[in-house]
Amino acid sequence: MKLIRFGLPGAEKPGIVTEAGTFDVSAFGEDFGERFFETDGLQRLAAWWEKNSGSCAQVPAGTRLGSCVQRPSKIICIGLNYADHARETNAQIPAEPIVFFKSTSSLVGPNDNLIIPRNSEKTDWEVELAVVIGKKASYVDEKDALDYVAGYALHNDYSERAFQLERGGQWVKGKSNDTFAPLGPWLVTKDEVKDVNNLRLWLTVNGKTMQDGTTANLIFKIPFLVSYLSQFMTLLPGDVISTGTPAGVGLGMNPQVYLKPGDVIELGIDGLGSSKQTAVAYK
Amino acid sequence: MKLIRFGLPGAEKPGIVTEAGTFDVSAFGEDFGERFFETDGLQRLAAWWEKNSGSCAQVPAGTRLGSCVQRPSKIICIGLNYADHARETNAQIPAEPIVFFKSTSSLVGPNDNLIIPRNSEKTDWEVELAVVIGKKASYVDEKDALDYVAGYALHNDYSERAFQLERGGQWVKGKSNDTFAPLGPWLVTKDEVKDVNNLRLWLTVNGKTMQDGTTANLIFKIPFLVSYLSQFMTLLPGDVISTGTPAGVGLGMNPQVYLKPGDVIELGIDGLGSSKQTAVAYK
Repeated sequence: MKLIRFGLPGAEKPGIVTEAGTFDVSAFGEDFGERFFETDGLQRLAAWWEKNSGSCAQVPAGTRLGSCVQRPSKIICIGLNYADHARETNAQIPAEPIVFFKSTSSLVGPNDNLIIPRNSEKTDWEVELAVVIGKKASYVDEKDALDYVAGYALHNDYSERAFQLERGGQWVKGKSNDTFAPLGPWLVTKDEVKDVNNLRLWLTVNGKTMQDGTTANLIFKIPFLVSYLSQFMTLLPGDVISTGTPAGVGLGMNPQVYLKPGDVIELGIDGLGSSKQTAVAYK
Repeated sequence: MKLIRFGLPGAEKPGIVTEAGTFDVSAFGEDFGERFFETDGLQRLAAWWEKNSGSCAQVPAGTRLGSCVQRPSKIICIGLNYADHARETNAQIPAEPIVFFKSTSSLVGPNDNLIIPRNSEKTDWEVELAVVIGKKASYVDEKDALDYVAGYALHNDYSERAFQLERGGQWVKGKSNDTFAPLGPWLVTKDEVKDVNNLRLWLTVNGKTMQDGTTANLIFKIPFLVSYLSQFMTLLPGDVISTGTPAGVGLGMNPQVYLKPGDVIELGIDGLGSSKQTAVAYK
């Protein structure tokens, strides 16, 4: 299944995308959040859909999409998880995953505007494959880790490099501004992704290709990441793990390139759809 | 007011502590979370209490307390915010606040057991004053910052030092295990705290004093912190800011001292009550 959330910010309704179109499934009565995932919501929704698809209205074209999952308990990000990106930022290949959090208040819809924060001069992009957790995971073995995954989504891990790297200490300061986490368009359930380790991911700015990589180059693969993280924290249903970005971010260019109002950022991953943000100034 | 949440984990009910005792206010119909704070819950509860206190049952002595607020969108921590603690860990006094997140899944009641994580050898304590946000805060001026604060609570920012400092990169790995954030006993509304910049805070392990400091020594004060953080992220109602720990953590001792199963940790802050955790091994 491909799940979406559509409608006005804060009032999104659940939907399903099929070959026949995009359908409103709010009659199912649940949003795609922690409770939905922890109570086998994906299976219950699939069963409900079989019986009720005929009575579901289409979502009008042009309707705003929200984040494809409800605000989770955490958005966990993996740093420097592609060798080419580590090289471009003059960082060493990490011996074990670098982990940081992004505020969940940064979550927005896939095509919402990117608001460049006040006093920002170094707002940057990062196309990433995000994993959505399907059930509570604590001390999970790598061989069982995919049992805890609900599916995958496209994520742009926007980053303010001065806030992240030049303001003392930890990265979270440069990762957490509002609109810095457009997620979606879809949550694609894992059964629909044939080989998550062989997906092309790309990003353009004003039509120019900036990132063009493949998840085949992930240093730490998804089962390892789920298992690893579950040693340090309990992953809750609906939690998001963003697995890192390939080469081609603004920080890695010479001279560096950062976003300005009016820039249009488009990105996509094979099978997970595409998204498009327009950069605007904070007002 | 002093607010508590009591009852079994995951099924806590709201309560109020007064000089006359501890009362069940679940008839008010709301838990102490984001929605409560953002809809002037404190004022509404105070008005409700004036009319209904006579019909509220006492909470039996010995009832378990949960975290004094419902799981927030984020727990933001400030690192090295007391000069004596920075010195003991051989760190420089920060030029601006060091900010990191703790997982919200680490939140527990003030007297719940501390579970020492699997493979942990360096689980450490940190008594801290926590601030609870009362309304949405984005780009707030320092002079207005206290308008956005609901109140204060006692927090033990448990930290696994090997996970935090020896496993590559960011601190979050050592801050996020289950039970690493006992919060409470009470959320004390700000009107009840006369001078938040002059509170003694202390912590003992097995009766021996380890930390004995005062919030007078905070490097970055609360209004500055709220304003500062609001430049990098939107603070949501119910969010928790833990303001840092004074000297006396296990990491700073020579030789270093870490927690083992059976250890009893007690801590308190003037006017904010005390809490007590017993360390147990992960099973």
